[in-house]
Amino acid sequence: MSDTKQAVRQPVDDDARRTAKDMIRTARFGALALCEPEASAPTVGRVGLATDCDGSPVFLVSTLSGRVACMTADPRAAVLIGEPGAGDPLAHRRLTLHGTVERCENEQRARVQRRYLARHPGAARYADFDDFSFWRLRPAQADLVLGFGRAFALTHEDLATPFPDWSAWHAMERGAVTHMNEDHLDATALYAHVLCGAPNGEWHMTGLDPEGVDMALGDDHRRLTYDASLSSCEALRPELVRLVREARRRADGAPESSRDL
Amino acid sequence: MSDTKQAVRQPVDDDARRTAKDMIRTARFGALALCEPEASAPTVGRVGLATDCDGSPVFLVSTLSGRVACMTADPRAAVLIGEPGAGDPLAHRRLTLHGTVERCENEQRARVQRRYLARHPGAARYADFDDFSFWRLRPAQADLVLGFGRAFALTHEDLATPFPDWSAWHAMERGAVTHMNEDHLDATALYAHVLCGAPNGEWHMTGLDPEGVDMALGDDHRRLTYDASLSSCEALRPELVRLVREARRRADGAPESSRDL
Repeated sequence: MSDTKQAVRQPVDDDARRTAKDMIRTARFGALALCEPEASAPTVGRVGLATDCDGSPVFLVSTLSGRVACMTADPRAAVLIGEPGAGDPLAHRRLTLHGTVERCENEQRARVQRRYLARHPGAARYADFDDFSFWRLRPAQADLVLGFGRAFALTHEDLATPFPDWSAWHAMERGAVTHMNEDHLDATALYAHVLCGAPNGEWHMTGLDPEGVDMALGDDHRRLTYDASLSSCEALRPELVRLVREARRRADGAPESSRDL
Repeated sequence: MSDTKQAVRQPVDDDARRTAKDMIRTARFGALALCEPEASAPTVGRVGLATDCDGSPVFLVSTLSGRVACMTADPRAAVLIGEPGAGDPLAHRRLTLHGTVERCENEQRARVQRRYLARHPGAARYADFDDFSFWRLRPAQADLVLGFGRAFALTHEDLATPFPDWSAWHAMERGAVTHMNEDHLDATALYAHVLCGAPNGEWHMTGLDPEGVDMALGDDHRRLTYDASLSSCEALRPELVRLVREARRRADGAPESSRDL
């Protein structure tokens, strides 16, 4: 079976990695599949999605849903993301992540909750209830389908956001996002509108990671990926400034050749 | 765990049954969860959906996807349906069906393929390929969530469409749908627009069953449910005629009290 599957997979390239990461970073929701502990039968439910800084999908579940018992007994999980557009649902791209889940506690819980609520502000009504917990999926492998005959098998390394010092990033990120949303909404609007082709509007940032900027305007979530992954916290500010300048040049209609001046 | 789950479920009523059936009958796609045979790990993928006449969800999969091997080794499956609208994805209704799948063969395959292609005409490009097969889910139990604090546990009986003689219905349905689409598109347009509140347009029928009429206009799928389930094939024509008359009366703006004249 796996030989047959491999035979129809295409070699993983940067486009496939970039598309998969963009899908994970912008997904509003997904379908979480688990195997029930006693009978080992499959079950699937909807989860709202956000990501931790390293790109791991995170979600919030109620103990009352029974899924906490499943995940506690067997942490293996799969998450399907991708929203079909018009026409044949199988003609549209989708991504299945396979991995293990872990409950977010302490600092991780606080960070994940903050990043989740930035994307799902309505969840603030119940996220603090005792029977709700945040969970993180660590993807071991993923199947990306971009259409007929365009399937890719991705590894953990294909999907992960690399960074040498996550503690430093985590200590910095919240303040950086708050600063951008309090003092530089004009920059975020340029990122979304000029660099991501999104409608004009009051865009705000929902997260910053070493590979890009997550932004939202209502239910419209966009991601701006840097040209290269950052290797230190200090590299963030210059990159954000460079992107504002690039956006202003493009908005002013300067020719492509002057973009790097 | 199951005690806790039961405690937050509401008693199943006709509204819950009707909503679940409508969701199944109108779903364009869903997330199919399986347990992989060797490692018993969960996996989940997108499927396009239609129904067999009795309301069982049916879908089409490629052998190359690996799911056929899973389902052949272990027929237990779960399907999540429901599309989140704006805002918090957890505030929107969803339905998880748990049951077993079986491969559709011979007459059942022909009927299921016809009904599937009526809803997904784009799939005609590949549905006949050797490596594609149609499968049917027989739901044993389902979890319906209509919003916070509104959860229902449904049984097979809550979801099934009852009928005393399916062979007779199957022998009749294809011709009846063709007849309606060739000679009575005006009736279907009235059903969709007047009785279901859908936009006006060239609606056509995609299926007829003892509980209602399935209709489509592009990706917009609607269902008109009869007041009571039919108990014979002969009851179909008078019911369709009655519904046209009711739609005409409503379209003419007659008062409610004259509807049964």
